[in-house]
Amino acid sequence: MKVGFIGFGELASTLANGLLTAGLEVYTCREGRSSRTKDLVNSTDVELCKSNYELVKTVEVVLSAVSPSQTVSVAREVGHVEGIYVDLNNVSPSTVQEALNHVGTSNTVDAAIMGSVRKKGLKVKIIASGGAADQFAQLNQYGMNIEVIGSKPGQASAIKMLRSAYTKGVSALLTESLYVAYKMGLDEEVLKYITQTEGPYFKESAVSRIKSSAYHAKRRSEEMEEVVAMIREETEPVMNQATLEFFGALAQKLEKPSQRPTSMAHVFRMLEESNNQG
Amino acid sequence: MKVGFIGFGELASTLANGLLTAGLEVYTCREGRSSRTKDLVNSTDVELCKSNYELVKTVEVVLSAVSPSQTVSVAREVGHVEGIYVDLNNVSPSTVQEALNHVGTSNTVDAAIMGSVRKKGLKVKIIASGGAADQFAQLNQYGMNIEVIGSKPGQASAIKMLRSAYTKGVSALLTESLYVAYKMGLDEEVLKYITQTEGPYFKESAVSRIKSSAYHAKRRSEEMEEVVAMIREETEPVMNQATLEFFGALAQKLEKPSQRPTSMAHVFRMLEESNNQG
Repeated sequence: MKVGFIGFGELASTLANGLLTAGLEVYTCREGRSSRTKDLVNSTDVELCKSNYELVKTVEVVLSAVSPSQTVSVAREVGHVEGIYVDLNNVSPSTVQEALNHVGTSNTVDAAIMGSVRKKGLKVKIIASGGAADQFAQLNQYGMNIEVIGSKPGQASAIKMLRSAYTKGVSALLTESLYVAYKMGLDEEVLKYITQTEGPYFKESAVSRIKSSAYHAKRRSEEMEEVVAMIREETEPVMNQATLEFFGALAQKLEKPSQRPTSMAHVFRMLEESNNQG
Repeated sequence: MKVGFIGFGELASTLANGLLTAGLEVYTCREGRSSRTKDLVNSTDVELCKSNYELVKTVEVVLSAVSPSQTVSVAREVGHVEGIYVDLNNVSPSTVQEALNHVGTSNTVDAAIMGSVRKKGLKVKIIASGGAADQFAQLNQYGMNIEVIGSKPGQASAIKMLRSAYTKGVSALLTESLYVAYKMGLDEEVLKYITQTEGPYFKESAVSRIKSSAYHAKRRSEEMEEVVAMIREETEPVMNQATLEFFGALAQKLEKPSQRPTSMAHVFRMLEESNNQG
């Protein structure tokens, strides 16, 4: 079986190397890609096509793994595809639907990565929906870990997006509540008593979420824009709108630090300084 | 040692019976209380005073366990107290401070119940702050479970309130996110994948939180009013303000059902009907 990757960043190169090892023929195209991507291509035994158009004519399964903003444009560029076209990109259900409309109908798959590619490699959990999801899942016999969750494109992306919005909301709640506790000199105590309700792993996870909230505030507020747009089609977003606003305000208050904050108190000191200046 | 209870509802009667069994002399006053409270008093061996004023002259430790709205008025009624005065009521730090100001300074305790009295009885975890917290904690030798967390009244109540606001925020986030998933036909899937991130006990706890969010929406929005007022003294509430608004809107959409909803889908069907009508 021949598999082709559009885009060759960390996700694509990890999956490509795994599938090469499993004995598949793997293709990509390095024209027009960044120098980092070209280095990743050159470090593997992947075979090269001259263009993405040639790529989709050569392989049976095309996997699109580009940056979110390129999701639709690469699909438009390749146009109608005979084989199976899998969109692995981290985008909203409506964006993935727009992309897939360019390449086909029953031969498309909306796929969402549900774990860390860096940690899990080819075995990372991927959920998939769409007309060709079952066919895509046949790559499990070469070591992938694809779970078909439905027949409609958009379902896999919606699940990933709602899960990620929930996690961001919890992070925002924690950051706000524990900052208030910190101002009262009670942050360690409040954390301790929430941990007694939420379970033994809560404390470590809470501290990690607060540190990464500060570090990734801007990106999270951008991601929440898409979530809120999706939710608004179904109901009035209240909590998710607040998550968007919280991260927007946090990004304005904290210039992105050059390094991750070292502790929860470190985040709160930065926030306190910014509030005192504002 | 003589201990007296102002108020004799479930909390006071449970603690009183435990302390009686441990050999203490326990007093209360049933004048002006509800018939349910009088029944609770009559079912125990607690000794009676004619008034709360007589009560505070008789005992060494007074425990106030009344409804939140009576917290300040009973403290004003008893006035200056010679012994130790412990406020066990579920109120904000500023309300407990106002109550304690009527009865004394160094002899007062702000105490907060951190678990289920029904399940734990006399052993329920109580956190305590204030000048007399260490003396109050001497009741641990009679089977109580008091932890002193600080020397200032208000600290114990603040910890309880922030913990409870966090839990309410999580419940609101879950209800909003999973309602959207339900509208997309993906609620079970989203719950499953959040559970994979959050740990094995998450699913059961999430379903229970969604059901009780619907059942207690009005009370939660009222409790969040106090939380938001407290937070506003330290920082701009964004997530907690949203929790308040979410429960306010939920209470308006769902008339309080006569019984707890039976399932997550039951809550979402009620919500969908209300949204379709509105």
